[in-house]
Amino acid sequence: METCVLKGCFVDAPTFGSLRVREGSFLVLVDGVIQGLWDRLPEEYAACPMKDYGEALVLPSFADLHLHAPQYPMLGMGMDLPLLDWLGTYTFPAEARFADPDYAREVYRKLARELIACGTTRVCRFSSLHTDATLILMEELEKAGVTGYVGKVNMDRNGGVNLQETTEESIRETERWLERCGGFAHLRPILTPRFTPSCTNELMAWLGRTAAERNLPIQSHLSENDREVQWVRELHPDCGQYWETYAKYGLWNDRTLMAHCVWSDQRERAAMKEAGVTVVHCPDSNVNVCSGVAPVRTMVEEGLKVALGTDIAGGDHLSMFDAVTSAIRASKIRQLTDPAHPAFLTVAEAWYLGTSAGQAFFGAGPGFAVGEKLHALVLEDSDLPQPHPLTARERLERCLYRRQEEAIRAVWSEGRLVLDRGEK
Amino acid sequence: METCVLKGCFVDAPTFGSLRVREGSFLVLVDGVIQGLWDRLPEEYAACPMKDYGEALVLPSFADLHLHAPQYPMLGMGMDLPLLDWLGTYTFPAEARFADPDYAREVYRKLARELIACGTTRVCRFSSLHTDATLILMEELEKAGVTGYVGKVNMDRNGGVNLQETTEESIRETERWLERCGGFAHLRPILTPRFTPSCTNELMAWLGRTAAERNLPIQSHLSENDREVQWVRELHPDCGQYWETYAKYGLWNDRTLMAHCVWSDQRERAAMKEAGVTVVHCPDSNVNVCSGVAPVRTMVEEGLKVALGTDIAGGDHLSMFDAVTSAIRASKIRQLTDPAHPAFLTVAEAWYLGTSAGQAFFGAGPGFAVGEKLHALVLEDSDLPQPHPLTARERLERCLYRRQEEAIRAVWSEGRLVLDRGEK
Repeated sequence: METCVLKGCFVDAPTFGSLRVREGSFLVLVDGVIQGLWDRLPEEYAACPMKDYGEALVLPSFADLHLHAPQYPMLGMGMDLPLLDWLGTYTFPAEARFADPDYAREVYRKLARELIACGTTRVCRFSSLHTDATLILMEELEKAGVTGYVGKVNMDRNGGVNLQETTEESIRETERWLERCGGFAHLRPILTPRFTPSCTNELMAWLGRTAAERNLPIQSHLSENDREVQWVRELHPDCGQYWETYAKYGLWNDRTLMAHCVWSDQRERAAMKEAGVTVVHCPDSNVNVCSGVAPVRTMVEEGLKVALGTDIAGGDHLSMFDAVTSAIRASKIRQLTDPAHPAFLTVAEAWYLGTSAGQAFFGAGPGFAVGEKLHALVLEDSDLPQPHPLTARERLERCLYRRQEEAIRAVWSEGRLVLDRGEK
Repeated sequence: METCVLKGCFVDAPTFGSLRVREGSFLVLVDGVIQGLWDRLPEEYAACPMKDYGEALVLPSFADLHLHAPQYPMLGMGMDLPLLDWLGTYTFPAEARFADPDYAREVYRKLARELIACGTTRVCRFSSLHTDATLILMEELEKAGVTGYVGKVNMDRNGGVNLQETTEESIRETERWLERCGGFAHLRPILTPRFTPSCTNELMAWLGRTAAERNLPIQSHLSENDREVQWVRELHPDCGQYWETYAKYGLWNDRTLMAHCVWSDQRERAAMKEAGVTVVHCPDSNVNVCSGVAPVRTMVEEGLKVALGTDIAGGDHLSMFDAVTSAIRASKIRQLTDPAHPAFLTVAEAWYLGTSAGQAFFGAGPGFAVGEKLHALVLEDSDLPQPHPLTARERLERCLYRRQEEAIRAVWSEGRLVLDRGEK
């Protein structure tokens, strides 16, 4: 058993809206598992090796619950196009290139490293429909220290040139992929019907059965864009609402992630709450592709599970610092433009969504919960000018708004130190 | 006479919505003044020293037309407070510290360097009410290579603790400041009544007379927030609209900058157009402090002069890369929430606002206009993954969305090389 002590200024969000600040405190790890957080180091750990981060902030690392790995090379491009045009003319060709394993290796290695450099250690991530590239993505994430779920995309209709499977291929390749997922320590498979228009009923039914038989989680998109919602209505005239196209095939339960939900009305939101579906709010993406501004605080107040995603490359940044402050801005915009929307998200609330709420999808307790493997980032902000002596809360807010990736000194993932920039 | 040739991939925005791309071209400077841009270098310049930037993008540097220098240390803090509370409890105490010249020197030196590192070479900038700190700000900007206008703030009412002048002090200190502004090569004074609630009628009248007598430009705030608009109405019951409180004292002409204008209705906008006032749109700040989302494209289509500002520290970033993409998002939000608003700003349009439209306030022609001193930044983006061979337009879009400050290899300001990171 290996014991290690971290010293620093610890801040986490144990509940929605609360911050726990522990300055000059000690966090003890045994084999990477958090034993506790103390103001004075207990005698029994006095002789253990220590990482002394001084006054630096030690924060839970981020959980990004929705992003498209093969869109990483096109990050920040094509933003003048609306969603469905952007998919057809831009995104699908970019994804089609991942038929080439060498290209996939090069791109995914870069992506995995950039994720860690941004302090994101947990992800739920769409790959493309390519099995080999999906396995390469899982290998590269694992090597870099990123944990979580990755999904080979299923799409047997309405795809792009060189980016569509037959139903049979989709099933066969998904089975082949699942058979090869056993070898990863920190990455697990998640079933990933791209969205309802991309999957035939037969494929949806097979995915629902497979989720149940193999006990697998599910991720997809829901009610992102009004044209898309209309399209789904035409494809499934038997379903009153978009969510029912997932529910009727067994793809709607408490291990389901649904990205966006911009246009989900009260009934659809109630269905999410009842089933325990997690909403992944992706504020920048929703504005970039002109989908709308999701009523994020309404969803939280109604008791839905809400986490955050960057949704690259609809989102234009891999950084969850951005996703947190953009969620705040999205809630402010709702407040400014929608009389029915409650107050905006505070810094503490939005940061909870980007950390503790995301962790929950992986079954982890909030913040630095005892008994969990450590996921953390260490931020050294001492060289910024001080208008007055700052509280830890002010330092946290500033780090989020200033997106201080460059100030990250160290990143811990699943109890392991995966990035160590040493002293400045 | 010193001649110098730059080689690279030049992109600029000669008009609203158009891009001019000149790959592998040559720009010739004589004493820092642009002579022209050629596909093949004219024979007469063949022997001149050359800066060969290879395939790198050479873009006009940014013009940031509204930001508060003394708020730099509080960048990214206090964002959970609404505008007027934020001013009273946060901003005014932060500004009051600039009574100390040593503190001012330290902060402003850092700020000036960060501006250049972000590729911003032209600014219109609020200082605090402190004359000495304002002169220090001008010195530090000049040393770093930032050009433009700086204003000592006038505020003889409704200030904060240790942050208010008497009318007499304000006039005397403004005169003292103006006398000492002659020594700068690239910085000039701009009269700066903070906003109508901060200035007595007597002070406003004196500022208007001084602007006329000394031929000085003017900057202030207009119709940022609904509570503020209401307050101005109470202070000036004789004025039908906010803008008239400036106009009646001679502070409303074609050398006037008005930040925000979120709540300016058609009549107020028509008054801006008629007088030639420039609107400074500050999209992030407007959302951060819950003021609203300005109808930016409506203003452009109505023929108003519109430029961009970061408005730190209401804005949370010094980078004009952010201001440009945030202006696009603001226009998308207006489109999504306001049926009367026209289409969103394209990348080319928003970038025009952040470069050529800003340059115009300094009397400079758009983009790389012949006869102007060169203001440029050089961006090396070759190490990013390529989904396909990119056009210069795509590279520009990506640089803007990815806010590639770290990719800036060189910055030119007023014809001089002010940042040179050399080869990678």
